[in-house]
Amino acid sequence: MLSSSSAQIRTLHSSISHSLSPKIRSYLSKDSTLRARIGSCGFPPTSIRSISSATTTIMASAEEARVPPAIPPPTPPFKIALCQLAVTTDKEKNIAHARHIIEGAAAKGAKLILLPEIWNSPYSNDSFPVYAEDIDAGGDASPSTAMLSELSRSLKITIVGGSIPERSGDRLYNTCCVFDTDGTLKAKHRKIHLFDIDIPGKMTFKESKTLTAGETPTIVDTDVGRIGVGICYDIRFQELAAIYAARGAHLICYPGAFNMTTGPLHWELLQRARAADCQLYVATCSPARDTGSSYVAWGHSTLVGPFGEVLATTEHDEAIVISEIDYSLIEQRSFLAKQILPVTQHTFHSRHNGEEIFTSLLMSRDLAQQKLVEVEAGYCWSVGTWNSILSLLKQRQ
Amino acid sequence: MLSSSSAQIRTLHSSISHSLSPKIRSYLSKDSTLRARIGSCGFPPTSIRSISSATTTIMASAEEARVPPAIPPPTPPFKIALCQLAVTTDKEKNIAHARHIIEGAAAKGAKLILLPEIWNSPYSNDSFPVYAEDIDAGGDASPSTAMLSELSRSLKITIVGGSIPERSGDRLYNTCCVFDTDGTLKAKHRKIHLFDIDIPGKMTFKESKTLTAGETPTIVDTDVGRIGVGICYDIRFQELAAIYAARGAHLICYPGAFNMTTGPLHWELLQRARAADCQLYVATCSPARDTGSSYVAWGHSTLVGPFGEVLATTEHDEAIVISEIDYSLIEQRSFLAKQILPVTQHTFHSRHNGEEIFTSLLMSRDLAQQKLVEVEAGYCWSVGTWNSILSLLKQRQ
Repeated sequence: MLSSSSAQIRTLHSSISHSLSPKIRSYLSKDSTLRARIGSCGFPPTSIRSISSATTTIMASAEEARVPPAIPPPTPPFKIALCQLAVTTDKEKNIAHARHIIEGAAAKGAKLILLPEIWNSPYSNDSFPVYAEDIDAGGDASPSTAMLSELSRSLKITIVGGSIPERSGDRLYNTCCVFDTDGTLKAKHRKIHLFDIDIPGKMTFKESKTLTAGETPTIVDTDVGRIGVGICYDIRFQELAAIYAARGAHLICYPGAFNMTTGPLHWELLQRARAADCQLYVATCSPARDTGSSYVAWGHSTLVGPFGEVLATTEHDEAIVISEIDYSLIEQRSFLAKQILPVTQHTFHSRHNGEEIFTSLLMSRDLAQQKLVEVEAGYCWSVGTWNSILSLLKQRQ
Repeated sequence: MLSSSSAQIRTLHSSISHSLSPKIRSYLSKDSTLRARIGSCGFPPTSIRSISSATTTIMASAEEARVPPAIPPPTPPFKIALCQLAVTTDKEKNIAHARHIIEGAAAKGAKLILLPEIWNSPYSNDSFPVYAEDIDAGGDASPSTAMLSELSRSLKITIVGGSIPERSGDRLYNTCCVFDTDGTLKAKHRKIHLFDIDIPGKMTFKESKTLTAGETPTIVDTDVGRIGVGICYDIRFQELAAIYAARGAHLICYPGAFNMTTGPLHWELLQRARAADCQLYVATCSPARDTGSSYVAWGHSTLVGPFGEVLATTEHDEAIVISEIDYSLIEQRSFLAKQILPVTQHTFHSRHNGEEIFTSLLMSRDLAQQKLVEVEAGYCWSVGTWNSILSLLKQRQ
């Protein structure tokens, strides 16, 4: 699912073309650069109607524009385990330890396991290249994800695998893998917003020194609901959460290693804000605190309910936080919300009517940055495509 | 400033036309409905460049698109007073009492006074029509705002006058007036998101039964900074705060009367989230709690700093919360933010580069609702105009 193929590209191109006006289609057919840009997107679209609706026709109703279709959340309630792992400098040991902890959490009934950001490696630029794995190659090239795949299949659990340093060609990413209950790698989220900090004499860390930023929001349907994924600093960007909410996510998972400055300031606030604004569950998972490491994590892995309420949390030591997710609360609260907080009567950020706005928001942000934007696993679009279409449209006016 | 004139409409029309492509201009010149829609907007634009940039040309840089220009925040620090007034059924008494409290706050050095939502009237649909005032007529037709104007001039203070029921023609609004230090009515914010609640047997309140929703975000430059205004339920809509932040606001004032259900759930969370996400000050002011009234207010008027930190608050009794606003903290924290939290390197919601995205967001939201949208006091646009332009553009492709 995560690699491109000519057939997928043809499907994508065909679907994009089909949704455009005849005039823009004719531009596309003549513009090889544009075709190449479209072809560079790896995912076949389930539908790109929302994209075309939000832009070339713009007056399509919110309901028409919504992609993907809403799915009912799974019932009954299930257990989630936030595995706040202690991380060492020994990768093999980290993998074995994670295996042990996951097996323990599953034995306690957890159907969804969330791991911390960078759990197989120390959190340092020196370590990332050394500990990085080629996830797409799999097998021996990625023992960390091979273990997650094996366990998710054998234990019949869903794993949102925190993150590990990923090597892809000559680039490194901070990457979260989601495994389905049959061991399939369902989605791969590359941290979009890299964290660079520089307070001379106090703290310096610059992820961008070694890592490349991801460009794709990631939302994935699993046995335990529709899950959006962000990594750490991604949580500061409300539009990412809002896009997931607009796409009908039931839960957003943020593996994250806030530090001793940002942790006490904002870790809980941001989780509660995203959950309350988006009316969904938010789960975070940090590494355990190691005061001897160069980057000291805040800990406090937490589950927040759809009204912004902290349902379960912990301090900074290694811990498995097991708590219950009951998606019927979203519907109950959504019902209440219509009564108590009739957000859905007005709002862009409703899970059920706001998608095209956030598509627009995401596009605009990336347009402003002139960066490639891929809207969601399931289909994609590039800002290059966008700019080309709009530019052509403008020239032809 | 708050009424339309033919000259203003002509200016607006001319400015809008000037910013559009020749082809769209030609459509406009032929489309009387469209012209009428543009003419129906009351405010002359200081510039509509951001609108046209975000749409017809879309690739304009964020900097080019930003309107209005950033202003430096006033220095040095100053005192704000949140006047958590007890409200009675006697309007004259309410006005006299508010006068007394404001004079007391000014005597203590407050340069900015914030009053509660609906401070001259009980908070009830029965009361709104009875206590409503014709603010535009002023004088005897609006004794509440006349008092605020008089005090702001005589005491040389800025007043963000909470809200009162406003009568305008045959409509009622929940309206906040901002008075400058010379007594001028600088801005008028009509609550955009009306609050309708219906939990049978527990609580029922439906503002929309008597009130009409405002359609305009309000941001205003004063001696005490650039201030965005929202009323109560408006605080739930993150895009309103984000628009203000993108427009360079230093402070958002939310007069608000959360209740005994929503208050403990979300009052503080929402304030802190808006402040931290937007990196600005947030001030709220509630009426004091009256357990004998039909709508029981939560109280807890609060000042929150640009890192989401509660700087001053109170319980539910009548109180004057006096605290200091030091806008240099925004810059300091913005500097820190670039270091600790480099939001501005990525983000749409930076105060300095996100405007056109939120213009787009606001438009999209209102497009979805098919409602008239006016982007900001200073210039406006209507969704009707938008739809017409896009529709015409589409037809001509």
